[in-house]
Amino acid sequence: MNGNLHVTRIRPMGKAATSLTVTGGRITAYGEPAPAGFESIDGRNAVLIPGLVEAHTHLDKTLLGMGWYRNEVGPRLIDKIENERAEKKRLRIDPARQSARQAILSVSKGTTAIRSHVDVDTEAGVAGVEGVLRTSEIYRDIVDIEIVAFPQSGMLIRPGTVELMEEALRLGAHVVGGLDPSAIDRDPKGHLDVVFGLAERFGVPVDIHLHEPAELGAFSMELIIERTRALGMQGEVTISHAFCLGMADQDYVANLIDALAEAKVHILTTAPAGRPAPPVKRLMEAGVVIAAGSDGVRDTWGPYGNADMLERAVLVGLRNNFRRDDEVALALETCTTGGARLMGLKDYGLAPGCKADFVLLDGETLAEAIVSRAPRQLVVKGGNVVARDGHTCSKAP
Amino acid sequence: MNGNLHVTRIRPMGKAATSLTVTGGRITAYGEPAPAGFESIDGRNAVLIPGLVEAHTHLDKTLLGMGWYRNEVGPRLIDKIENERAEKKRLRIDPARQSARQAILSVSKGTTAIRSHVDVDTEAGVAGVEGVLRTSEIYRDIVDIEIVAFPQSGMLIRPGTVELMEEALRLGAHVVGGLDPSAIDRDPKGHLDVVFGLAERFGVPVDIHLHEPAELGAFSMELIIERTRALGMQGEVTISHAFCLGMADQDYVANLIDALAEAKVHILTTAPAGRPAPPVKRLMEAGVVIAAGSDGVRDTWGPYGNADMLERAVLVGLRNNFRRDDEVALALETCTTGGARLMGLKDYGLAPGCKADFVLLDGETLAEAIVSRAPRQLVVKGGNVVARDGHTCSKAP
Repeated sequence: MNGNLHVTRIRPMGKAATSLTVTGGRITAYGEPAPAGFESIDGRNAVLIPGLVEAHTHLDKTLLGMGWYRNEVGPRLIDKIENERAEKKRLRIDPARQSARQAILSVSKGTTAIRSHVDVDTEAGVAGVEGVLRTSEIYRDIVDIEIVAFPQSGMLIRPGTVELMEEALRLGAHVVGGLDPSAIDRDPKGHLDVVFGLAERFGVPVDIHLHEPAELGAFSMELIIERTRALGMQGEVTISHAFCLGMADQDYVANLIDALAEAKVHILTTAPAGRPAPPVKRLMEAGVVIAAGSDGVRDTWGPYGNADMLERAVLVGLRNNFRRDDEVALALETCTTGGARLMGLKDYGLAPGCKADFVLLDGETLAEAIVSRAPRQLVVKGGNVVARDGHTCSKAP
Repeated sequence: MNGNLHVTRIRPMGKAATSLTVTGGRITAYGEPAPAGFESIDGRNAVLIPGLVEAHTHLDKTLLGMGWYRNEVGPRLIDKIENERAEKKRLRIDPARQSARQAILSVSKGTTAIRSHVDVDTEAGVAGVEGVLRTSEIYRDIVDIEIVAFPQSGMLIRPGTVELMEEALRLGAHVVGGLDPSAIDRDPKGHLDVVFGLAERFGVPVDIHLHEPAELGAFSMELIIERTRALGMQGEVTISHAFCLGMADQDYVANLIDALAEAKVHILTTAPAGRPAPPVKRLMEAGVVIAAGSDGVRDTWGPYGNADMLERAVLVGLRNNFRRDDEVALALETCTTGGARLMGLKDYGLAPGCKADFVLLDGETLAEAIVSRAPRQLVVKGGNVVARDGHTCSKAP
């Protein structure tokens, strides 16, 4: 674990084969012979991509390894929120243990950076944030974990939550979260003033869950953009889900996209098959940063999710009707550079000088490597091998 | 290969563990000891489900094993159709070889019956049907293949195609296909009169690709239902894709669903993430048979698809926002009993007396077995093992 490495026979983004030198945890050269004393690995003609970025998940509440959870939850959003608060106590979901399990699963699939929303509420307090902070410390050498303090149960409608959000940020949460200012908190101005107020006081970015549909969501989006501009927070605000960008009124959508681009507000999508969703290509063309995430992985909300960001790229492709090879590459971008820009990761990428966070994929071309989703041949974080052939070098608790 | 088998420690649909006896290719008992001379297999506590049914694919034109196809095709439906006709010649896509490759891939993933649409057009003639018929003969012991004569390039707009459709049916195609009566063939009455005329003359079922959107597709659907009733073909007509059932006008959709149920017209969906799609649960509740398919697997139309009907069940679940365990089981039904009913498979299922076509899946519960999509532990067709641990016993050409 010294961050020195030489990998032969790799094809960056599917292009011509070369070798790669990593020195002190950074990519230092292509096509050079192995420096003396460096471990050398045969890349077996694999496609080289930068580390996958999981830009939206909920590490604290996955049920991985806890036995199958039989889901009999009601259909409304509030049913899921209330069921989860109750089940957390009943099942004793340990945020430290569970976040470690999912983080390690992510690493096995090539993810090198994760943004996790972590619940803050008046029942569990900030225990989730404390647990995931512990995981982020323990596993800091294999994956970067960024924590969003997330008021899952609402903020203004549950007195005491704002104080807990402050506590979470004092403890070290990196981002302030928010949730459906109208649909859940019933006070869009009040909710957003608190969220942006916390961002200003603590000097942290913002990432707001916005499930609100169509024109209602669009109104919230406008309020978020106004505050981003007023506070000079361009580039530091993300709207997650943003279903409203999939609404029918295309003129309104076009205006929103222009405003997002101008205010440098980022969009996060899970590429939901069953909901209106942000149009990935149009957002990219407008210059809006768009990234992807798994959302919940096997939790009380639903049984799906496996933390595989190549599978997420396929879902982004299917959702956006991407068929051409250049479009499949765009789908991957939401799971690599898009996520890195959203999280503000420094020195991310494959250029010399970048941090040596990368993945080797089986496939004749980049597109084939993405759609076939074979077990990852090699995952490297900071110049050290952290997973091989689909298995991590770390053991899950 | 005598169709006699005894499998211990299996859990039918995830229920209590038992053993299963297969005699002469049929399920004959549960919970009985192994008859003398029967091969006995340890089911390792797997979930037992009936054979998966791939109810809509295009075996003749997959590019599996032919090297990566770089997709640079234009965005319109007609671009894809014309590109494909040209590429078929250029790439020399051999329908017999390619259908064998995909069929074997399907078997490795637990599919025991396939309905394949096969192109019939004035350039390739009926070569596709001949090729897939050959595959269906060669691999008849490992998978049932049903062939739909499919006028992919249009029928009335390309003179000579109707005669080729007749030839395909004389050769042994099992079903007569159709395609977008208005959007492609520009003559809904003319197109459907020919399709149903062929069905009547040859005594075969009908399966029509209907991509037409919203009210246009709904009109075609009405015309299909009228002809189904007039010819007494209840139970023998399928509408594939049926995007119009995902249209906004919910009253119109409700009327269509009632009419489909009354005329016993079946619906096939791929659960497309990027298009309006038939609502699976509502159709089931109305008594309409609804099945699922992969559509094209790695062809000139698009790079996706892996012939995995458990993955298709997950996509059906995601598209329909199925989260509860009972809903995930419904998603699987579209890939098992739904497909069997659509294809009219006889003696399908897990009851004693049924044909011994079944799959063993890893998983604590049925829902976990579906969403985790682990390599199939065992695939049995007609009482004989045809795949183990994700690998078929047959070799692809």
